[in-house]
Amino acid sequence: MDSPHKGHTVRSYDDELNQLDNYISEMGGIAESQLAAALDALAKRNSELAALVIVQDEAIDKIEAKIGEAAVELIARRQPMANDLRQVLASLKIAQILERIGDYAANVAKRSTVLNQLPPVEPARSVPRMGRLVEQMIHEVLDAYSTRNAEAALSVWHRDEGIDGLYDSVFRELLTYMMEDPRNITACTHLLFIAKNIERIGDYTTNVAEIIYFLVKGEPLTETRPKADTTSFAVMTPGAPKG
Amino acid sequence: MDSPHKGHTVRSYDDELNQLDNYISEMGGIAESQLAAALDALAKRNSELAALVIVQDEAIDKIEAKIGEAAVELIARRQPMANDLRQVLASLKIAQILERIGDYAANVAKRSTVLNQLPPVEPARSVPRMGRLVEQMIHEVLDAYSTRNAEAALSVWHRDEGIDGLYDSVFRELLTYMMEDPRNITACTHLLFIAKNIERIGDYTTNVAEIIYFLVKGEPLTETRPKADTTSFAVMTPGAPKG
Repeated sequence: MDSPHKGHTVRSYDDELNQLDNYISEMGGIAESQLAAALDALAKRNSELAALVIVQDEAIDKIEAKIGEAAVELIARRQPMANDLRQVLASLKIAQILERIGDYAANVAKRSTVLNQLPPVEPARSVPRMGRLVEQMIHEVLDAYSTRNAEAALSVWHRDEGIDGLYDSVFRELLTYMMEDPRNITACTHLLFIAKNIERIGDYTTNVAEIIYFLVKGEPLTETRPKADTTSFAVMTPGAPKG
Repeated sequence: MDSPHKGHTVRSYDDELNQLDNYISEMGGIAESQLAAALDALAKRNSELAALVIVQDEAIDKIEAKIGEAAVELIARRQPMANDLRQVLASLKIAQILERIGDYAANVAKRSTVLNQLPPVEPARSVPRMGRLVEQMIHEVLDAYSTRNAEAALSVWHRDEGIDGLYDSVFRELLTYMMEDPRNITACTHLLFIAKNIERIGDYTTNVAEIIYFLVKGEPLTETRPKADTTSFAVMTPGAPKG
């Protein structure tokens, strides 16, 4: 297989750099499948699946710890120069981000167990749809990392704007439901936080894209980041038209 | 002045390690004052102050970038061994956390400008109180970092449980207000997210405490972390007693 770390004369140094990538790949794969399972648990009101997601979060934390140890050992033993060093530090940063993504997926699972104790509400359908798009973004950004493809990373980065737009409409939909009937408030509040978790995962995915871009191009992404979370400024009043 | 990095024969290597600490100290001070200002903006319904907080978030991001560059340069030029290397990597991690804390503070400010467009609601008082306690935790964890005091870090770490308890009661208070009158829903939703932001900042502060503990003691904090966010499991129904 082609590796992005060819060219070092010491074979095991390459192995060590590749090992970091393998960890990221493994960790990212679990984070992605944790989000997928949490969304399934939500969409299908499956509390057993949700419980599984909550338990499995530990697996992600363990790989993050392994990456931390491997990186420290690699730096101390190999004293990597500029490019390799940036590579190692990038893997530490990405590991930290994937750990957060795992936390958010576990929180989606936790909240879906609450929703299963309450009567179903309509917006519970829009939220998993938004989640599937973010799941796809995670998948693509991990591919972009393993192939060191800056254009693919940039394409994921741009798609986050669409997620923010979806989040905005889900936010308004949820507030409308809450205003219509107070019995919807608890369920819709948990859905609000679930939607926000998904939106945050989208943001984190763009952070990974930025790290990849910098690794490949050697310079930061200078485009202005599409502005997240316009709902922080949202004012809605009861009786206003649904939007 | 006493420095935690005494003992290297090359004087400028110490300077470089201290410089990282100085950056953390500067960055942490700004993050703390950003949260303080955001809470003031919320408590006093001061949108001009909130606007200032939003603009100043960039200052934190800039120091994070400086820390990243300084750390890469230090590792490449000095090839630090075990302890110093852990120190450098710790400063990178803490910088990343402080950047997030800054983001959360800016989001509190954004949402407080929305609240100023709506009639005041009662729970807007409990939320800043909770925020002041977290602000104090940031202050103390930064002190613990600059003095490398594991016990002080542990004490901050333990206090987060109290914040989680406060968040829990604020969460229930807000849901009760929403259920009582749909005209409270928009304001209370933004307050819910503000309270959640503050609770997350508390969590991040415990992460910094864990990093300090590890740096000083050379082993991870093995106590089980007080469990955050029990509200992820909260079921409330309209008409239930206020709690």
